[in-house]
Amino acid sequence: MGVVLSLDESKKPAASVKPLMDLTAADMARVNELILSKAGSDVELIPEISNHLVSSGGKRLRPMITLAAAQMFGYGGDNHVKLATAVEFMHTATLLHDDVVDESGLRRGHKTARVIWGNQASVLVGDFLLGQAFRMMVDVGSLDALDVLSTAAAVIAEGEVWQLSAAQDLETTEDDYLAVIKAKTAALFSAAAEVGPIISGGSKTDRAALRSYGTNLGLAFQLIDDALDYGGSASDLGKNTGDDFREGKVTLPVVLSYRRGTAKEREFWKGAIEDGGSSDEALERAIALMNSHGAITDTVARARHFGDIARDALAPLKPSAQKDALYEVIDFCISRVN
Amino acid sequence: MGVVLSLDESKKPAASVKPLMDLTAADMARVNELILSKAGSDVELIPEISNHLVSSGGKRLRPMITLAAAQMFGYGGDNHVKLATAVEFMHTATLLHDDVVDESGLRRGHKTARVIWGNQASVLVGDFLLGQAFRMMVDVGSLDALDVLSTAAAVIAEGEVWQLSAAQDLETTEDDYLAVIKAKTAALFSAAAEVGPIISGGSKTDRAALRSYGTNLGLAFQLIDDALDYGGSASDLGKNTGDDFREGKVTLPVVLSYRRGTAKEREFWKGAIEDGGSSDEALERAIALMNSHGAITDTVARARHFGDIARDALAPLKPSAQKDALYEVIDFCISRVN
Repeated sequence: MGVVLSLDESKKPAASVKPLMDLTAADMARVNELILSKAGSDVELIPEISNHLVSSGGKRLRPMITLAAAQMFGYGGDNHVKLATAVEFMHTATLLHDDVVDESGLRRGHKTARVIWGNQASVLVGDFLLGQAFRMMVDVGSLDALDVLSTAAAVIAEGEVWQLSAAQDLETTEDDYLAVIKAKTAALFSAAAEVGPIISGGSKTDRAALRSYGTNLGLAFQLIDDALDYGGSASDLGKNTGDDFREGKVTLPVVLSYRRGTAKEREFWKGAIEDGGSSDEALERAIALMNSHGAITDTVARARHFGDIARDALAPLKPSAQKDALYEVIDFCISRVN
Repeated sequence: MGVVLSLDESKKPAASVKPLMDLTAADMARVNELILSKAGSDVELIPEISNHLVSSGGKRLRPMITLAAAQMFGYGGDNHVKLATAVEFMHTATLLHDDVVDESGLRRGHKTARVIWGNQASVLVGDFLLGQAFRMMVDVGSLDALDVLSTAAAVIAEGEVWQLSAAQDLETTEDDYLAVIKAKTAALFSAAAEVGPIISGGSKTDRAALRSYGTNLGLAFQLIDDALDYGGSASDLGKNTGDDFREGKVTLPVVLSYRRGTAKEREFWKGAIEDGGSSDEALERAIALMNSHGAITDTVARARHFGDIARDALAPLKPSAQKDALYEVIDFCISRVN
């Protein structure tokens, strides 16, 4: 039950997030301190849940992007650390609420907060982290950064509602799907990147370059995530293969397979997606159909397309270690399918 | 199953929110337009749920306070309308999330959004409205107003988590209870009032006066709300009598009755509050015990105490129709027990 892909990248040395981690290590240590401090509260449940999320080991890609995007314009103050922390809090709040909405049991191989502490605490602690994120942004005092990040917050939520409305709807087009992932995932990557030049006094062109990089990296990232849901294992991904399928989520691999399928196959998809609660046999059949129509391979091809746009967005900027690291993040995101 | 109170106020003409409504009518028409515009989205579920909330007829006390608090300092621009709308959105988002957390079926006599559209939509549309609230605040461009409102957002959520942690805990003291309602209710009233002088260029003293007015009005408001949960009827209140009791919420009437009760009565409270799902007979007994210990009367007395502080907070400000209207709101909030 795996996905076989022919990847050109397999010949190159593996792309890695390590250059980005190395460049941002000192700043990320300060981000981690600030996370612990701002997730602190006399209300014990708040640090308990926050620590659970902190220790469940996400890659912290979004705050690292904010830090690198400030560094590459020579930023010398403290505000990039605050904004990176705010970005991570926004992301964490979204995860807490998403897990409630999706009724998820596992994330990155750990039990979700809602399983341990309940939906109620997950909703409210998410709200608290979002409130703390806004306080940090206000503390930075840049109205432009506030504008970009508050707009992202509204757009993300709008995308999530859209996804909920379109759930289990096999008439979803590829355009619909792209609009949803642009809102729910790419908007935060975009804002995380754009606030770098904003606080560093970057030009309009610099802002546009980082914004475009973030948006397209986010699209590529989500496309690969959605491809991975039909391959890999829970221990690799911290996600159970087939989660999206069992929840009736109409992601691109499903959109393509449904559209390319025979009438009989479409009946299968209708039963599986619209009725939900599909069996392991149904999941195996779904993956077989996807492979027969090249739906996974083409989802990865779409991700490469957006990765290329992200690369070209950064191209005019002057050379720097940060720029190279951000390039490599694109390849890293895409090479996760290996 | 009613509450009999001897109220001094009953001799005066009934206090009303009407003077505040009259003074803010023109501005509130603009707030209502802005609500409809900012709750708009191509994602149909968002305006659907927003319209449901708008039409379910809250008094809109909080935005009216923001408007009056700006008017009394001679504010002449548009920003008070934006901030009043942001305040109402923050409140609405909190209601959406609260109803999910409390599993409420009715609010103001209408079915809650979660009953009609589900918990998932309520969580996500709440997040969207909060995001839109922040965008409007950013649009106003006052970092002081942003500071006050974003702090309120974090404090409200922290108070809600605290309430959740302390749920069904009969060891809750009156101080604990006050700290919770100060966070979950008074913080937004306080911020709603304080942003008035902030955008009108009011002095530090003006800000402190309105902040204190809002905080203490909010405390009085919540105390009366919690008293009303043990009297009145769903059609008057839009709340079912005994909702708090059935949810095991330890509000002040319970705190006082438990502390003042006999050992046998405490056993009753433990069974009723800690086990939840109490019967109508249990609710009748609870109300009888509250009346025998003066727990409702004293909850109202506590509300009057905070009402008096709210009144004195405004006292040094120069006379105005707005000031008189805000005074009358205090009496209105407290006289709701009639």
